[in-house]
Amino acid sequence: MSNLRDELIEHGILADGGAPGLYHRGGAFENVVSGIEALFRSLDPYDSPRWVMSPVTTAQVLVDTDYVESFPQLMGLLDGFHGDAREARTLADTAHDGGEWWQQLDATGLALRPAACHGLYPLLAGRQMPPGGGHYEISATCFRHEPSDNPARMQTFRMQEFVVVGTPEEARAFRDAWLERALDAHRSLGLVVEAEAANDPFFGRASQMMSQGQLEKELKFEIVAPIAQETPNAISSANYHEDHFGTSFAITTSTGVAESACFAVGLERSALALFRRHGVEVSSWPTDVAARLGL
Amino acid sequence: MSNLRDELIEHGILADGGAPGLYHRGGAFENVVSGIEALFRSLDPYDSPRWVMSPVTTAQVLVDTDYVESFPQLMGLLDGFHGDAREARTLADTAHDGGEWWQQLDATGLALRPAACHGLYPLLAGRQMPPGGGHYEISATCFRHEPSDNPARMQTFRMQEFVVVGTPEEARAFRDAWLERALDAHRSLGLVVEAEAANDPFFGRASQMMSQGQLEKELKFEIVAPIAQETPNAISSANYHEDHFGTSFAITTSTGVAESACFAVGLERSALALFRRHGVEVSSWPTDVAARLGL
Repeated sequence: MSNLRDELIEHGILADGGAPGLYHRGGAFENVVSGIEALFRSLDPYDSPRWVMSPVTTAQVLVDTDYVESFPQLMGLLDGFHGDAREARTLADTAHDGGEWWQQLDATGLALRPAACHGLYPLLAGRQMPPGGGHYEISATCFRHEPSDNPARMQTFRMQEFVVVGTPEEARAFRDAWLERALDAHRSLGLVVEAEAANDPFFGRASQMMSQGQLEKELKFEIVAPIAQETPNAISSANYHEDHFGTSFAITTSTGVAESACFAVGLERSALALFRRHGVEVSSWPTDVAARLGL
Repeated sequence: MSNLRDELIEHGILADGGAPGLYHRGGAFENVVSGIEALFRSLDPYDSPRWVMSPVTTAQVLVDTDYVESFPQLMGLLDGFHGDAREARTLADTAHDGGEWWQQLDATGLALRPAACHGLYPLLAGRQMPPGGGHYEISATCFRHEPSDNPARMQTFRMQEFVVVGTPEEARAFRDAWLERALDAHRSLGLVVEAEAANDPFFGRASQMMSQGQLEKELKFEIVAPIAQETPNAISSANYHEDHFGTSFAITTSTGVAESACFAVGLERSALALFRRHGVEVSSWPTDVAARLGL
């Protein structure tokens, strides 16, 4: 298999961002991403209100959503400089002498957002969802600390999510309908995709049990497509959260604690799968695919 | 003056992101931002190649661009968790007991990007620019650590920049032409704007001298408009860097070290100035303004 990363960089689709998993995105890549986002938005049957979540969140949200115990290895917390002019001089001198200048910084209480829809639930805290459920289109730039040379594993990436918060029946039906809709959408772009039951990359001692539980209860399905390696990567996923967020943030329906589900499109991964499938020259992509993406 | 922040949140234009200076952006806000970005792109006479820079960069770039000594107070560096399963258990316990769990994290070597065009110069390192200069459209999500309740001072925001790297004459002419072009563009959207000589918020002992030098040499002009306070805020700026980046990254022209200039549009601030000017109901904005923004 050709080296997709090198090919994308050579053709100015991506540029090396200076460390493994960091990339600048060229205009052609961005046009494909915008096309994917618009295509999926056009499929949303609810004309949902749209929110772009802040890419920076509070560190406390990582505790409130149990992210700190499930995925500590993926977190990014922000340090800042809180010193005076004299300490700033020492900081700059240490930096230019090649010393460990970052040791002179302190916590800010801020962190990078690990998942788009995690920003929504605090906004709904204490509220009762309407009959039929609340529907939302959520997107965000997310961060996961997993340095890699595989372009399918970027450390920052954008997710577009369609979310329902409602009854268990509403959550399950929403999740299943989006899975079918998205398989069709990815296929309409020429991708060879499959849906499979999946689990999140839980960390630590309870990880096996957590993953097993997720698989057995069929809480998560991923749509996978080949990107840079033989093993396909998830390009989108359908997730049923049960009452995880409803309980954490006291969100209800007329019949009890609210449940939630989301369908998440990995915008970079969906774009990369298209570059893998159709080549690095967007002008040579099939006419119907280009038209669907507004290219 | 009414409280613009409260009004925007009440009307679902923005939502509180959980800490001062963090905001989620609603669909109406995003449509205005997209409109501003498209309008300025349409004014670029060079049809420049476009790059969206990675929102995360290396901490070393903050040293190489002298950011660490000029603006240490605005930096955000990333810590991550590098421990094993046992340490992860301690981390989670500390977090849920309300302890200082972030003390158990370590530096990742990564930082948030403080300015869009800072991502471009490393890509041009060691290269000679063509006659007429190299032209680029650069955008990025930027971070500056300055918690505030003034919505004009968000901690994360998007900048769209038009950049030239070339001879001193090319840099100055580019900067001056964009300043005029942008005054017209902001005015075409109904804004009452002015251009004024400005300086960056340098920190520490040398700050007075640095700011004075920048003002005397007329390196920076800001276009200001009223947002949430009586004092207008910069919504865009024209910056002449002299050979600062050319020297740091060994970029040349046929006649010597390359100089650079950029015109930067603060997308959030430009949008906020429009909400201040035309009100929070986008459907009531003047027809010509809405048309120019593609609304």
